[in-house]
Amino acid sequence: MNIGIIGVGTVGQGVVNLLDIEKKAIENRIGEKVNILWLCDVRDIDDRDKEWKFTTNYKDIIGDDKVDTVLELMGGNTTAFDITASVIESGKNLITANKHLLATRGEELFTLAHKNKVKIFFEAAVAGGIPSVSTLYEGLFPGGIKSIKGILNGTANYILTKMEEGLSYDKALSLAQNEGYAEADPTFDIKGIDTGHKISLISYLTWGVLTDFDSIPIEGMDSITLEDIEKAKKEGKRIKLLGEAVKEKDGISIRVAPAMVSEDDLLYNTSGAYNAIETEGTHLGKTLLYGQGAGMYPTASAVISDLYKVANSKAWKV
Amino acid sequence: MNIGIIGVGTVGQGVVNLLDIEKKAIENRIGEKVNILWLCDVRDIDDRDKEWKFTTNYKDIIGDDKVDTVLELMGGNTTAFDITASVIESGKNLITANKHLLATRGEELFTLAHKNKVKIFFEAAVAGGIPSVSTLYEGLFPGGIKSIKGILNGTANYILTKMEEGLSYDKALSLAQNEGYAEADPTFDIKGIDTGHKISLISYLTWGVLTDFDSIPIEGMDSITLEDIEKAKKEGKRIKLLGEAVKEKDGISIRVAPAMVSEDDLLYNTSGAYNAIETEGTHLGKTLLYGQGAGMYPTASAVISDLYKVANSKAWKV
Repeated sequence: MNIGIIGVGTVGQGVVNLLDIEKKAIENRIGEKVNILWLCDVRDIDDRDKEWKFTTNYKDIIGDDKVDTVLELMGGNTTAFDITASVIESGKNLITANKHLLATRGEELFTLAHKNKVKIFFEAAVAGGIPSVSTLYEGLFPGGIKSIKGILNGTANYILTKMEEGLSYDKALSLAQNEGYAEADPTFDIKGIDTGHKISLISYLTWGVLTDFDSIPIEGMDSITLEDIEKAKKEGKRIKLLGEAVKEKDGISIRVAPAMVSEDDLLYNTSGAYNAIETEGTHLGKTLLYGQGAGMYPTASAVISDLYKVANSKAWKV
Repeated sequence: MNIGIIGVGTVGQGVVNLLDIEKKAIENRIGEKVNILWLCDVRDIDDRDKEWKFTTNYKDIIGDDKVDTVLELMGGNTTAFDITASVIESGKNLITANKHLLATRGEELFTLAHKNKVKIFFEAAVAGGIPSVSTLYEGLFPGGIKSIKGILNGTANYILTKMEEGLSYDKALSLAQNEGYAEADPTFDIKGIDTGHKISLISYLTWGVLTDFDSIPIEGMDSITLEDIEKAKKEGKRIKLLGEAVKEKDGISIRVAPAMVSEDDLLYNTSGAYNAIETEGTHLGKTLLYGQGAGMYPTASAVISDLYKVANSKAWKV
């Protein structure tokens, strides 16, 4: 497998590192050699003495016939859209960690991929360290899933956890930023938008329908006060920012909002930067998937598990 | 896909039912029609007006060139060994829920499968309602997994949970039998043997080495008393029957034994007939998979998720 990586930030660097550190284990499981042919970024990266070449122009990668699989790890939904659309039209496999792109412009990209008979893989777009995409798509589908709820944003959950320990919202946010969990601009995290992107993609994987993103009611957790948290605590509960998707008779209903979670709920003990996804199925009862939602290596692991899917599956139709 | 099912007990009947109830969703996800051509069992099943034929002789199924995939759902490791070996030698895909068979005689079967270039799928053999096999094999492998521990036997866990509520061991066991969790002969469950089978298979999936089953130290939970449970409770702990596998410098170390689990442990809240598997990886941190470990439909769902793998993966080498 010959890959090109577009966007070498935290996750991209993690992928490069993991493919080096775990080379033997990864190639053994995937069943073939994995060669990085190109890295692309806006900032210069020194490629002397490296196996890969560096470019600032992504078209160098798409134009290289030797590249069969492109990893889009840059984020955003404007330039990233042009890039991923070009990748698909070139007939190469696309791996992306970009939930923002897929949740808002996925319909166009999935249609384009279908037309060009290529696949889009996005394990890293939903809850980095939890193999949620393969689990929902391959493992749980016969279970008749009726509803899904999840703690899907590590930053928001970290802030809520710190507030339970007594910190004010502002102090907890600063701490999240210092610890590297929250971006300089945490809007998407605290306003529930990132959670919305993820629950929308989870719903798409489960039921095959991508909901118009603008129609999803989204409430963030930035208005939660220490008083709210204390009040919940007195009732033996915790406040969590939840993404929820329910299969109704007439379609899929999705929402994002803070909710009270009681002690006997599976999501109660998901603290700090961890994520969890709970499903309930007619035939399967409850399942819970729990793990790190973000971070360099958890997310890079998810990207690499997509290399396995590229190599070994012919049916990723989504 | 044309399948034959050998062994139509609880799980086999569940598969037949689910392929009927969820036919559209299943075939849509798998990407092709799934036809049951044969059912085989020792007891007679009426096949009038059915799409499938019934036989008491499994060779009818193996000899039918139209059958491409055989589901062995009968259990045991003697007749089931002969049957599965014949399936493999016939060049058909094998799906089995039989952990006893694979943990004790898997080496022979996996070698035979490799020689015959066919695949053995066994999602239902480990923790029925949790897609643990695909998650470990496809999703978590780049994470550098160092250790795994799990609550893998629903019967043992149900009994321990009931003992926490004050029931004696004998009463809890009777209740488990009345509720349909425990077999008439619960030896494998309470003596830790079933847990041993499962942790051995999990270890094989993760690190590619099948440990000689007889070399695994196994201690059951049938000697746990109410006093032990009360003592643990006073320390804020619970007693759980754990299967553990650790990657050491010089190989894999596996054991089964009851252990004290504290409140902040992810496995603490896995109660009743539920199972959970916790992994810890160098690059991935902790993950937890939680769900129903047994039962007609959770296990049947796992079998059906293997049909997806048969259709769509070329690399199930194990």
